[in-house]
Amino acid sequence: MAERGRRPGEFALIERYFRPLAADPGAFDLADDAALYRQRPGDDLVVTTDMIAEGVHFLAGDPPDSVAHKALRVNLSDLAAKGAVPFGYLMSLALPARWTEAWVKAFAAALKGDQKRYGVVLLGGDTIKASGGVTVSVTAIGRVPRGRMVPRSGARPGDAVMVSGTVGDAALGLALRRGALDPKLAGNGAKGLVDRSLHPRPRVALAQALRRHATSAIDVSDGLIADLGHICEASGVGAEIESHAVPLSPATRRVCVADPPTLALALNGGDDYEILATVADSAAGAFRRAAKEAGVPVARIGRIVPGDGPPVVRDASGRVVRVRPGHTHF
Amino acid sequence: MAERGRRPGEFALIERYFRPLAADPGAFDLADDAALYRQRPGDDLVVTTDMIAEGVHFLAGDPPDSVAHKALRVNLSDLAAKGAVPFGYLMSLALPARWTEAWVKAFAAALKGDQKRYGVVLLGGDTIKASGGVTVSVTAIGRVPRGRMVPRSGARPGDAVMVSGTVGDAALGLALRRGALDPKLAGNGAKGLVDRSLHPRPRVALAQALRRHATSAIDVSDGLIADLGHICEASGVGAEIESHAVPLSPATRRVCVADPPTLALALNGGDDYEILATVADSAAGAFRRAAKEAGVPVARIGRIVPGDGPPVVRDASGRVVRVRPGHTHF
Repeated sequence: MAERGRRPGEFALIERYFRPLAADPGAFDLADDAALYRQRPGDDLVVTTDMIAEGVHFLAGDPPDSVAHKALRVNLSDLAAKGAVPFGYLMSLALPARWTEAWVKAFAAALKGDQKRYGVVLLGGDTIKASGGVTVSVTAIGRVPRGRMVPRSGARPGDAVMVSGTVGDAALGLALRRGALDPKLAGNGAKGLVDRSLHPRPRVALAQALRRHATSAIDVSDGLIADLGHICEASGVGAEIESHAVPLSPATRRVCVADPPTLALALNGGDDYEILATVADSAAGAFRRAAKEAGVPVARIGRIVPGDGPPVVRDASGRVVRVRPGHTHF
Repeated sequence: MAERGRRPGEFALIERYFRPLAADPGAFDLADDAALYRQRPGDDLVVTTDMIAEGVHFLAGDPPDSVAHKALRVNLSDLAAKGAVPFGYLMSLALPARWTEAWVKAFAAALKGDQKRYGVVLLGGDTIKASGGVTVSVTAIGRVPRGRMVPRSGARPGDAVMVSGTVGDAALGLALRRGALDPKLAGNGAKGLVDRSLHPRPRVALAQALRRHATSAIDVSDGLIADLGHICEASGVGAEIESHAVPLSPATRRVCVADPPTLALALNGGDDYEILATVADSAAGAFRRAAKEAGVPVARIGRIVPGDGPPVVRDASGRVVRVRPGHTHF
């Protein structure tokens, strides 16, 4: 945030930048105490909340559009993993004393772009003075046909473990931004890795294929292995992953070839916001085709087995690979 | 927060203190990405969110039960003003590095008490490292019969302006805690004033009477005059208040008699979490009776008039009293 100059007060700020986002009659132009949601028969609602804080989930100098994207999209990613179609969100924004109007303007413009991209509207919110850096809390609301939410708890032995897109890019991008990874290793792919760490891409398009085929699903936020562990714990099963089957982007693959221990970072780094799902073995092909039709590549990376404990990772020769446990945001 | 000692990690913290609050099947013991809300035919949902931060909405040394009460109850107050019956809430909690398990334990115990008191359950949440002091964001969900939400925008000229309980106590309590008010002025009522500034009491019991009789309603959080101004703006009307009709607690009345300018603080101080409502003149008696049956005293303090602009306050002799504009939390 730059020179702050003259700034609008709370009400002017809301009117200028957030009211235009409240494009739903139930949001009452943000001029009421609460929003109204008129239920649609045959739907269940799915609700989720995530908070991100400066210095914890994003860096102080990160561009405002990246902060907006993260705050909203991590929630849309949770909804996608449940097979839900996002509808709206409420947002609380804590701004430190140094806030600038330019920052809020860019932040709101990024939300506006995402509202169009993902079909959501702002339903309500709160703007407060922060006690530290910028903090944003979003609660997102989505819909699924009644009884069709995809749980974490439905994985069964024999199911295929599938993951969308590529894994590890965000973790490597963050390592690059922190100077913990030599950009030469990533070559001209470095910029793409950094971009993924700044702008998560929730797999909203995958919701229908998940509802149709997945026995369980989760979005990859804590790290591939940790999140698969969450599915195993909720489902009372174990899992085996083939490390060479985990889909990597060309840039991440290049880094892992040059520096093999980086693979553990890719498998554990978190913030991928890909979807990890289990499907019956017989449905794996149909799920892949449905995902492809939705424009999302998915890869089979392992299988669910009886038992419990953390997922076991094996390399191409069948040897067990030890990977560090996933990180947490706490 | 005292000496921190050994502390549980994020998952243990959630399991130990927050999972027991998630007493609804749709919360999946907080062990899924999102919560499920199964709609009830004939209901509309009402959703609201508020964030509170240390040093802004509460003081660093405030007891954890007060922080929990404020975080949840300010949202329940918004729902009550809309005539909605609260059902559940999602909560994001940012904890600074100095957090202690004892603090979280007391915080969660206070939430548990409120869940029983107000009939709500925790549906989901997020626990993160704070970038500053403690910050809590709550999104609350309530139900109203379809089409029966009480708006801000329904006040009409001739309507009576009514307010529940007593006004100004929280502001005077905060002034006492900050050393800005001589406790001798409040006598043995000082403790009660401080208590009201620490523990808001949302008028959840008033929801049904509001649905039946109110043309508009809002909860008093920015200050009586400011919040009546919000109703006037949303409804396109003006309002006149009789300052001597505004209900004051014995302690606040005592301070105002000893130091008359304190009345402006009472009318503008905010954080009362009483309900300000307008009702048709002919319905004022019925509203008062329905409120009384619900255990909530309400008083008639003025009337809605044609026009616009901020509410006009008159004293017992009909003279216009100038009061400072309401404070904001931003």
